[in-house]
Amino acid sequence: MNLLLLNENDFISPGQAAIDGRRAEHALSILKTAPGGTIRTGIIDGNIGTSTVTDITAGRITMEVSCHEPPPPPLPVTLICAMQRPKTFKKLLQCGAAMGVKKFIVIECWKVDKSYWDSPVLKPESLREQFLLGLEQGCDTVMPELETRRRFRPFAEDELPGITAGRLALVAHPNGEIRCPTGIDRETLLAVGPEGGFTDYEVGKFVETGFTPINLGPRIMRTEFALAALLGRIF
Amino acid sequence: MNLLLLNENDFISPGQAAIDGRRAEHALSILKTAPGGTIRTGIIDGNIGTSTVTDITAGRITMEVSCHEPPPPPLPVTLICAMQRPKTFKKLLQCGAAMGVKKFIVIECWKVDKSYWDSPVLKPESLREQFLLGLEQGCDTVMPELETRRRFRPFAEDELPGITAGRLALVAHPNGEIRCPTGIDRETLLAVGPEGGFTDYEVGKFVETGFTPINLGPRIMRTEFALAALLGRIF
Repeated sequence: MNLLLLNENDFISPGQAAIDGRRAEHALSILKTAPGGTIRTGIIDGNIGTSTVTDITAGRITMEVSCHEPPPPPLPVTLICAMQRPKTFKKLLQCGAAMGVKKFIVIECWKVDKSYWDSPVLKPESLREQFLLGLEQGCDTVMPELETRRRFRPFAEDELPGITAGRLALVAHPNGEIRCPTGIDRETLLAVGPEGGFTDYEVGKFVETGFTPINLGPRIMRTEFALAALLGRIF
Repeated sequence: MNLLLLNENDFISPGQAAIDGRRAEHALSILKTAPGGTIRTGIIDGNIGTSTVTDITAGRITMEVSCHEPPPPPLPVTLICAMQRPKTFKKLLQCGAAMGVKKFIVIECWKVDKSYWDSPVLKPESLREQFLLGLEQGCDTVMPELETRRRFRPFAEDELPGITAGRLALVAHPNGEIRCPTGIDRETLLAVGPEGGFTDYEVGKFVETGFTPINLGPRIMRTEFALAALLGRIF
């Protein structure tokens, strides 16, 4: 937790907040917070600053909160990612949120096990938890948005052309014709496949809509590390 | 397991191997290997090619092995990384091995909990296991080397100047003066700190030896994702 994130329910009066539970435990046991000490703090979807601890009683921390700096700018990317095994999916959400992705579109693909869609990981409170962990890690406050699309073909044929217009569009694929570009500072769509990769049909659909297949070299990476490498490289 | 890795003990005659245990289970349950089928195969520290399954009996797979392609070229990097929490350390080793790192130097730093050095993760068989998982993932055969240095100052003052000579030397640091470079194709030293980062003293020691502090933007990433982003970006 590099940034303590507060929501409006944490405020007990203007400029004064109190926390308990996971965040307070972390502050006390890992950050060794003590009265008079400060904690780097952000307000969800708001500014970043500092809290000064005024009281610690029975594991509950009361703080004066002063947040006046804006959060870091978002990455100019919409991430289209295949649904993943729940464990991998959580890592993907955390990694993306920590790196500044603000828009996720999670799609069905041929090589995605259909049972993954029934996982509790897709429940709003679980998504929010993964995003919070990512934001706390990456020192950001702005909660990402996530949408799901269960039918690939209507998404690819009816919706994708509209999203792609005016954007750089890249689909990560081991056989991608060009090496992943770098130094991009424009709005980008990045598509990342499931563990077994997109099928040729799926890559073909992305290409029809103007996506360029890109590779990360001769090696195959785990999805979450591939995402980190792609985002680290592109932007 | 994108590549089945064989060692010399797996060969029952020239060109013929038999496996059981974890690799056979994976081949049967995930890859759905059947007699006559093929498995992408590599020989540890040797070539890559294909195995054709000739027999499956009681979970033991016998194969004809034909490996004539060289493994992918290594990344031209020596990774100097702080010792980490064992769980993070495993991910770091797997990620590095999957991405083509062949030389790890694991160092003591101020913010490294000393107890980590007693972890079984540093035992040769555990290191080998993490590297094998990484190579299987990344489709590579060449086993990385790993050395440890328990005393930072002698390492930095006596050893580092010799290693640095003739190489690009980069130390990842949130306050690093320049953005992480890209498109590098020369021998590089990359230093990655512990979860809490290098101390100013430690960064200073790297800088004295000719390292350039580099950053990955305003966000703080988990060590394993930072490594993926750094390697993806630099090379």
